[in-house]
Amino acid sequence: MIHKLLKNKKVVLASQSPRRKEVLKMLGVNALQVPSTVEEDLTLSNPSQLAMNNAKLKVMDITNKMDRECVVVGADTIVYANHEILGKPKSIYDGKEQLRKLSNSFHYVYTGLSVSYRGENITKFLRTKVIFCELSETEIDDYFMTKEPLDKAGSYGIQGFGSQFVKKIVGDYFNVMGFPISLFYEILKDLGVE
Amino acid sequence: MIHKLLKNKKVVLASQSPRRKEVLKMLGVNALQVPSTVEEDLTLSNPSQLAMNNAKLKVMDITNKMDRECVVVGADTIVYANHEILGKPKSIYDGKEQLRKLSNSFHYVYTGLSVSYRGENITKFLRTKVIFCELSETEIDDYFMTKEPLDKAGSYGIQGFGSQFVKKIVGDYFNVMGFPISLFYEILKDLGVE
Repeated sequence: MIHKLLKNKKVVLASQSPRRKEVLKMLGVNALQVPSTVEEDLTLSNPSQLAMNNAKLKVMDITNKMDRECVVVGADTIVYANHEILGKPKSIYDGKEQLRKLSNSFHYVYTGLSVSYRGENITKFLRTKVIFCELSETEIDDYFMTKEPLDKAGSYGIQGFGSQFVKKIVGDYFNVMGFPISLFYEILKDLGVE
Repeated sequence: MIHKLLKNKKVVLASQSPRRKEVLKMLGVNALQVPSTVEEDLTLSNPSQLAMNNAKLKVMDITNKMDRECVVVGADTIVYANHEILGKPKSIYDGKEQLRKLSNSFHYVYTGLSVSYRGENITKFLRTKVIFCELSETEIDDYFMTKEPLDKAGSYGIQGFGSQFVKKIVGDYFNVMGFPISLFYEILKDLGVE
């Protein structure tokens, strides 16, 4: 299990996301959060490549500053609807436009996960399909009143108030939250962490 | 949104599950927990009928003791693997046997959700498919060391340490946790709660 593999390791989370920190805590892992200041690459249009590339950029930035015995992990999450990448909303107006695009439809969430340990790095991604309920204008307005969508790609969080808008998912739930747990476990084993 | 519909309502949760209480809290709903003492019906072999029947039994037991303006909600969750209903483990031995059945395979989780309001009751269910990773005997032993599986149908919790064993789901994640959020929202609207 993850907490057993990481028992005597220093774990560094190259992300400032409170949700990712929370997921690690749930797994019994106390990670040190050291957000990377590296610029995200926004030029790639392929969502899986973009998510992996940004996750790896962040992790390598921190890995280079740390002891090689540290396990450094980072992730990048992308919402992809109708061949369009939806980032964090630039404004409330932009965010409401994003939610109208997700309403009564499906989209994909890609999370790239990158882990470094003892000079080796593995970066992979998972894709989850998310099917949304139909949202009324009032629901969209009310959702923005909760402030939850403001800092999230695609303007929703699956683990908070946003959960009531999600009819169904196909894939990994934690991938939508931004930290694919079973993929993390797989990568740790592949890196020989024990 | 759910917290808006329930803003000035007394909400009673006919279940002692801390996870269900937690889900309602996440949705901004402060529910009073009044667990029902009614005997669960274990004679039905159809999982959806059984989950709905038990949810309704619990909710009607509490509804009859409450003011009709209360919104009373209850749920029952069943793990169904290879045509067999897996309940809460009777012993550690029994629980480990259950996990061996789930390992490297898929199963279904049924949650029946029952809501009463102003003399009316609606009871429905959702089914979610859960695909498990292959578990080693060491992983099963280590998982029982966390004590997490002891009080859970099928001997795992999708929201805790158990999350690392889940490769993929098809359906509603919160249904597996024991409280299908989008179904709850749908039922509240159908009951005319506002």
